[in-house]
Amino acid sequence: MKELPSILHLTEAFRNFPSVGEKSAERMAYALLEMDKEQISYLLRSIENASTKVHLCPKCGLLTEEDICSICSSSERNHRLMIVLSHPKDVIPFEKMRNYKGIYHVLGGDISSIQDINPEDLTIKELNARLESEGVEELILATSPTIEGETTALYLSRLFINKNIKITRLAYGLPIGASFEYTDELTLSRALQGRTNMKGDK
Amino acid sequence: MKELPSILHLTEAFRNFPSVGEKSAERMAYALLEMDKEQISYLLRSIENASTKVHLCPKCGLLTEEDICSICSSSERNHRLMIVLSHPKDVIPFEKMRNYKGIYHVLGGDISSIQDINPEDLTIKELNARLESEGVEELILATSPTIEGETTALYLSRLFINKNIKITRLAYGLPIGASFEYTDELTLSRALQGRTNMKGDK
Repeated sequence: MKELPSILHLTEAFRNFPSVGEKSAERMAYALLEMDKEQISYLLRSIENASTKVHLCPKCGLLTEEDICSICSSSERNHRLMIVLSHPKDVIPFEKMRNYKGIYHVLGGDISSIQDINPEDLTIKELNARLESEGVEELILATSPTIEGETTALYLSRLFINKNIKITRLAYGLPIGASFEYTDELTLSRALQGRTNMKGDK
Repeated sequence: MKELPSILHLTEAFRNFPSVGEKSAERMAYALLEMDKEQISYLLRSIENASTKVHLCPKCGLLTEEDICSICSSSERNHRLMIVLSHPKDVIPFEKMRNYKGIYHVLGGDISSIQDINPEDLTIKELNARLESEGVEELILATSPTIEGETTALYLSRLFINKNIKITRLAYGLPIGASFEYTDELTLSRALQGRTNMKGDK
């Protein structure tokens, strides 16, 4: 007996998720066939909704369902303090921490020679424009805790060296090579407190 | 910032898959948002297709997209040799083995007092009818290698004790408590060769 085409396609579709291998995808396909109609239609609706409603905030690059994200449009946030992130989802642990009240800017990636991602592929021009127009006083560089993220942070700190803005970087405490998704709030909190000045003592 | 409703719903929908926890579901939701339109529509179509086209074969209980599954309708299979399975997906390793040429009957579960699954909840009546009408000569009990599967096999061997049919059980070699999904073909092949007669030397 050959595998059913529907099941093969479903397995293939699940393989597009990160860290879902052949066996896991097959497992998920069979699990789906055992779900009731309601669970399946909930799944279909959720996928459709998320993929049509969610887009990047045109100001900061975070994910939002509104025209401008709830952070950019909030008057309760400190718009003079800005965290620079590599990816939209990196915001999750910062917001879970609950004690950061500034705003964000998402670059959309890290500079990487291997993946051929150059500064002009990121929203650095937009970041520069925001620094000019929004009166940012401190820029906290919280790009990925990887070599690429470090490179990006260094690039930005050099680029903005002559601006009258304090530029800091999250303190180490973040293990290099790790992913923000698995960072606990306490470690992150410490890293935020111990942020270091990237322009020296200027 | 609160999590976006679309992302929360998507995360919740992914939680319905077995062994997908909170973190994994969240990861999958964000991964979906980074997929291109084509990947998402392929996923949606695959889910819709699989959930509408795939159903249980009315004869043996395996999954099929046709009226009768390809094994039941094949003249190249030995219809006198029948393997009894607990779940439809348990067929996968048997068919991957390539040297089993008999047919199947799927019970739809195992007898379990804890989960309140009784013999009448399984397709045992249908199995009995098939034994009568299809001239089965050997019934290989390959219910799950768990306590419940053992109970079910024992129940069936007692039930059919007076029928003029050889009744066998897969040899141990299968680790108790394991799942068929993670059984390698070699172990399974050995277990099939060493199958034992459940009616004693009768």
